[in-house]
Amino acid sequence: MGPVALDAMGGDGAPETMISGAVAAVRQGLDVVVVGDPERLAPLIPAGVSLPIEPAAGVVSMDSGRVAAAVRATPEPSVSVAMRMVREGRACAAVSCGHTGATMAAGLFRLGRLAGVERPAVTMVVPRTDGGRLVVLDLGANVDCRPSQLLQFALMGHAYAQGVAGLPSPRVGLLSNGEEPGKGDERVREAGELIAAFAERSGAIRFVGNVEPLGAFRGDCDVLVCDGFVGNVMLKTVEATAEVVTHIVREEILKTTTAKAGAWLLRPALRRVRERTDYSSQGGALLLGVDGVVVVGHGRSDATAVRSALQFARHCAADDLPRKVLRALERLPENPAD
Amino acid sequence: MGPVALDAMGGDGAPETMISGAVAAVRQGLDVVVVGDPERLAPLIPAGVSLPIEPAAGVVSMDSGRVAAAVRATPEPSVSVAMRMVREGRACAAVSCGHTGATMAAGLFRLGRLAGVERPAVTMVVPRTDGGRLVVLDLGANVDCRPSQLLQFALMGHAYAQGVAGLPSPRVGLLSNGEEPGKGDERVREAGELIAAFAERSGAIRFVGNVEPLGAFRGDCDVLVCDGFVGNVMLKTVEATAEVVTHIVREEILKTTTAKAGAWLLRPALRRVRERTDYSSQGGALLLGVDGVVVVGHGRSDATAVRSALQFARHCAADDLPRKVLRALERLPENPAD
Repeated sequence: MGPVALDAMGGDGAPETMISGAVAAVRQGLDVVVVGDPERLAPLIPAGVSLPIEPAAGVVSMDSGRVAAAVRATPEPSVSVAMRMVREGRACAAVSCGHTGATMAAGLFRLGRLAGVERPAVTMVVPRTDGGRLVVLDLGANVDCRPSQLLQFALMGHAYAQGVAGLPSPRVGLLSNGEEPGKGDERVREAGELIAAFAERSGAIRFVGNVEPLGAFRGDCDVLVCDGFVGNVMLKTVEATAEVVTHIVREEILKTTTAKAGAWLLRPALRRVRERTDYSSQGGALLLGVDGVVVVGHGRSDATAVRSALQFARHCAADDLPRKVLRALERLPENPAD
Repeated sequence: MGPVALDAMGGDGAPETMISGAVAAVRQGLDVVVVGDPERLAPLIPAGVSLPIEPAAGVVSMDSGRVAAAVRATPEPSVSVAMRMVREGRACAAVSCGHTGATMAAGLFRLGRLAGVERPAVTMVVPRTDGGRLVVLDLGANVDCRPSQLLQFALMGHAYAQGVAGLPSPRVGLLSNGEEPGKGDERVREAGELIAAFAERSGAIRFVGNVEPLGAFRGDCDVLVCDGFVGNVMLKTVEATAEVVTHIVREEILKTTTAKAGAWLLRPALRRVRERTDYSSQGGALLLGVDGVVVVGHGRSDATAVRSALQFARHCAADDLPRKVLRALERLPENPAD
């Protein structure tokens, strides 16, 4: 299996943070190739570290308005080169912490979609309070999903939970504002009926119906399916709530010496809380549905997060994830009813 | 001004919790009437407390499938009686901690909509990290909102922020998955254009465009407008995240004696955090757009939350909120362009 290709030019801390993360991964035995401007990258690689550079002159900036055009531009941007290496069999997976839309566009352009997939989905694994893990998709690649696309997400998420997460019979839920079958907006209600009918007819997935955010975090399902708009709002609300709570706790702690002392004693416990809740340590999100392993790192990734993303990408490639997703999608009806 | 009418039969802890909350409010000088079964309510009221009972024999259960029919049923349910008292001028406001859908249905049935309102909105005020407050609507009354309804929410939220929250020129934002004008699903993009055009033409509101959850909690806007589906998912995600974080922190604290000692020292600070973040202490949500003041308490409200909801309802009635919302809606175009 080839190395993991890292887009060294994308992300807030690029290229320095990307190289630091790649070097850390290499030192742990991972095979990595970095993609970007050799003149900028070479001086950042310590002597004795085996980290080849694949040259790429272009870069997609975070404020590129038309990403679809930007990833096809000349000179070829680093994110497209990384995907092309996967296509040509010179890399087993691609990782980018740059613009998510650009990574999506480059993945579609260079790798293409798996048969049966209309739109790839940004997929994450998050910790649940019951100790299990929750696969959530789509988290932002697609707004205005049709019910047939949500059914595809259900199958892709199911294949991912079986393969990478190792769950024999994952339960698939649909994100909604209530658990009763009639809850949800029009799209969710239609998708719920479509997925339930498919699950019953095919026996290919275990569909548990509508799930609320708290139910999902507690373990009511293993795979949570949603439209990219509401999924992205949910993800950003989790981040925002965590930040707001942290901010308020800090303000209150700083008000008294007793509280400050208490916080000092709590530091090791709070560090463990951070480790358990830090989504970046999960290795980033996966772009599920393209013909290859593509990991979308957070734009604010630090070197540890980059290293985790590289290891995660390698893990998914070793698991032959795209083949598993493809096989799951073969169960789909030819003409989805929507 | 008449008393605040409390539906004493709705909510998880009804009627005991409702009466406790009402008694606490009366002891603080508030004029309250409780609505429900006199045989059950009378024994709960301590001697010497002036808390009249308005008899109602019916109750809408939490699992009523067809709430619209349930609130019109015979015998008339307590939530409908409370609304009728407002209609007849025998109460200044109504509060219910029962089924939100039933409160909405009873409000529409007994009070009707203000001119210009297609659908009332569940509206809450939540604390921001900058010390300000954020008015959010709709939080669950309406799924599948059309852009013209989101424009109505913008105007209602604006009137509420000016009146009850006392902000001279509140900034109105539209909840989205990104701040750029092109972000959002189809509905959000259309609503954004409609609200922006209205704001420019009329000068009636200050529209700041798309706002993400973190931006809203930090203070990028004073009024956050959203469809009831995504709003409800956001609200439930906030609650779920807070619960998950609390759960994980507690697990980690219990692992070591040092952490337990630290947590003990932190207790007063954490109590203040809870007070600042406890949405129930804000007094519940408001049903904005019906012709009267209706407060929707949380189903799990305790006596303190019930007392806060009663005080909040009285505050809104004293502010003549429905008139202010009505005046704001008079600025609407006759035929909204959607």
